Amino acid sequence: MENLLQIIIKKRDGEELTEREVESIVNGYVSGDLPDYQMTVFLMAVYFQGMTDIEIGYLTNSYIRTGDRIDFPFTTVDKHSTGGVGDKISIMLAPIVAACGVKVPMISGRALGHTGGTLDKLESIPGLRTDLSESEFRKVIDEVGFSIISQTDNLVPADRKIYALRDVTGTVESLPLITASIMSKKIAEGAANLVLDLKVGTGAFMQNESAATKLGKMLKSTGERLGQRVEIVYSNMNSPLGLYIGNALEVQEAIEYLQGKNIPDLDMLTKHLAAKMLTLSGTYQEYQQAMRAVTKAIESGQALERLARFIRMQGGDDKVCETPQILGKAKYTVDISANKTGYIQSIDTRRIGYALMNVNAGRRVLESQLDYNSGAYIEAKIGDFVNVDEAMGKVICNDKDKGRYTAELITKAYIISDHKKKKENIILEVE
Amino acid sequence: MENLLQIIIKKRDGEELTEREVESIVNGYVSGDLPDYQMTVFLMAVYFQGMTDIEIGYLTNSYIRTGDRIDFPFTTVDKHSTGGVGDKISIMLAPIVAACGVKVPMISGRALGHTGGTLDKLESIPGLRTDLSESEFRKVIDEVGFSIISQTDNLVPADRKIYALRDVTGTVESLPLITASIMSKKIAEGAANLVLDLKVGTGAFMQNESAATKLGKMLKSTGERLGQRVEIVYSNMNSPLGLYIGNALEVQEAIEYLQGKNIPDLDMLTKHLAAKMLTLSGTYQEYQQAMRAVTKAIESGQALERLARFIRMQGGDDKVCETPQILGKAKYTVDISANKTGYIQSIDTRRIGYALMNVNAGRRVLESQLDYNSGAYIEAKIGDFVNVDEAMGKVICNDKDKGRYTAELITKAYIISDHKKKKENIILEVE
Repeated sequence: MENLLQIIIKKRDGEELTEREVESIVNGYVSGDLPDYQMTVFLMAVYFQGMTDIEIGYLTNSYIRTGDRIDFPFTTVDKHSTGGVGDKISIMLAPIVAACGVKVPMISGRALGHTGGTLDKLESIPGLRTDLSESEFRKVIDEVGFSIISQTDNLVPADRKIYALRDVTGTVESLPLITASIMSKKIAEGAANLVLDLKVGTGAFMQNESAATKLGKMLKSTGERLGQRVEIVYSNMNSPLGLYIGNALEVQEAIEYLQGKNIPDLDMLTKHLAAKMLTLSGTYQEYQQAMRAVTKAIESGQALERLARFIRMQGGDDKVCETPQILGKAKYTVDISANKTGYIQSIDTRRIGYALMNVNAGRRVLESQLDYNSGAYIEAKIGDFVNVDEAMGKVICNDKDKGRYTAELITKAYIISDHKKKKENIILEVE
Repeated sequence: MENLLQIIIKKRDGEELTEREVESIVNGYVSGDLPDYQMTVFLMAVYFQGMTDIEIGYLTNSYIRTGDRIDFPFTTVDKHSTGGVGDKISIMLAPIVAACGVKVPMISGRALGHTGGTLDKLESIPGLRTDLSESEFRKVIDEVGFSIISQTDNLVPADRKIYALRDVTGTVESLPLITASIMSKKIAEGAANLVLDLKVGTGAFMQNESAATKLGKMLKSTGERLGQRVEIVYSNMNSPLGLYIGNALEVQEAIEYLQGKNIPDLDMLTKHLAAKMLTLSGTYQEYQQAMRAVTKAIESGQALERLARFIRMQGGDDKVCETPQILGKAKYTVDISANKTGYIQSIDTRRIGYALMNVNAGRRVLESQLDYNSGAYIEAKIGDFVNVDEAMGKVICNDKDKGRYTAELITKAYIISDHKKKKENIILEVE
């Protein structure tokens, strides 16, 4: 057996580890030979010393090999977002792409901190299950063209165990560790093609473009090293995405979008990601062709019909696709008032996400109970003109006091001044 | 309660911690509120980010406050060495200084890795105990003027617990952590004055002067911050110290020195450290005066007489002070032969320490059994001329095969060439 402490010291001293060394650490931890207190110093050493692209490839592959790897006999494509506020895109995107003829095996996550999670949003639909077995997952994909589930027990168990440890030891914010965590799951789930929606801005983990491109390159290089085709889309997270934030509220918005409602930022990003998925997977050669197919899938109602079949097959009530309002909204609304007259210069979108934890729209810790019907409706984005005391949006809540407090916190996330401010693009031209 | 993870992240991000934050970490760990897997990331964060002098003072003080602090109603002085090969100086130094009228409360350590430990050496004397209680420790100091014991259970328990964790997580080699570990014990033991013998060279932890002075300044500043007077002596560890290496062998050499045997490097360093202890503690104003008192304490036999009383009071057989040969030597000797004719350019002294583990003169791990009577006699030092195949010394052992292997390893630690090479000074002029 390798001396695991020697490997940790080698990384501490900034040397590049071999494939065998990286694998010894990961397998040693999963098997219990490497105790928590040594694994955490390895993680902290990686935090400080980083990893080369080659090492990140070894790490990701070692993660994958601790569990099952799903393989499909047909072309597959998935999208992963690095997390933001109001990001309900997967709920529209997966059925659109499936309707265009490519299969989407999507393993998704839960809300944590200021960001939402697709699984929680979907589970606000009565009866809908996301804890499918691999064979159920395959069956839904075969019949509907896509499925969205939670990580099964035997998919990348190393990542689950290591993520729990990172969360309590200050080693979450390490680009190599983030990369291995994301890519191992996205490769093990069987997606041969992957479009990454890398969010940049005040509501994202990556606050500026240089940090985002560093992560983007790492993710792409790791996927390609392990045989996956990867494309990165950088998108703007300086404002919440769409109009609604909150679990059932976002599902309703996603369905209304597929029913034909015009929501500009959502529309632009969803169609762009869908077209990228279709070209990356080779379904269409040309972006414009792909765009036309995407638009048709939405306008013809085929995407909405796919979503309804998906909901039904995973145990949910598909009437929501006809009447999304049945999901309901919380009892009270409290206006979010502008504290000044002028143009919105910036929004601390992360603070909005955190503020909404007060009405249980988000999770402080993984055990937090969610109130699916709470959240916010927010119209005001960067560049908009507002009058003092005018409502920029509203908090939707079941506890009026907490709602008021939340609305005040959100007001403070806005910086307003007399200077005109340009509206921002949702898709960023980076590099 | 402070959020301990927030404090760890603050240190990870390179910020200076407050006294309360440092204390929360140390107390949290000792009480069990902070689990091993979080403490180790704190230690690794300190490894990478370092600590300011102020923080190191907080850390040292927090260590001390987890246990008892001994206080004496008279002037005290101690010496601490950062560890080397053949370093038997404490055995001579403590009785010399006591004979000159200053009390020496000395808490010492065990052999580990390539370095020896005073406790192991002393325990080669039949019957001698080092595990005294605090009241026994005080009694021996009162009556003999010095005592050398092992760390009692309630002296700096934080250091014992944290050191064990550092040892298995690659966080030993951190100057702030080394400083807190050394200084907490040397302050808690009740030494108001402390001379530090900072070893520099191939047989020391600090291989070069710049690393050594960095540690030296940190140790001095920390002691002074906590009310201790500290003086640093930098000494040469490019060759083994004295002629013998090995537990009972070094005790015999120390007694022979006090009986009048001339061993130049030992003599020079012992007297210098003794004189510094006497001036630092205010017993003598002038170094030359102190030097004369030291020489007299040795030549008059008073130092040897103190050593005999100490051995007797701690349960040992004081006949060794008359006839050190009764401690015995291992059965066999194997020559250490020069592999070339020429001048000794350098000696990898650390490798000699490691080689001697093969005859059980040193400890690979804390549980290793020692053979007190094994070791080596080594005459050849840097600058000496040797002929090929000439004996530069000998391995003393109870297993001839292992002895031969050890002798070969030691031969390889020597670099010999035709160029003349200056002999090196034992006391270094640093800064």
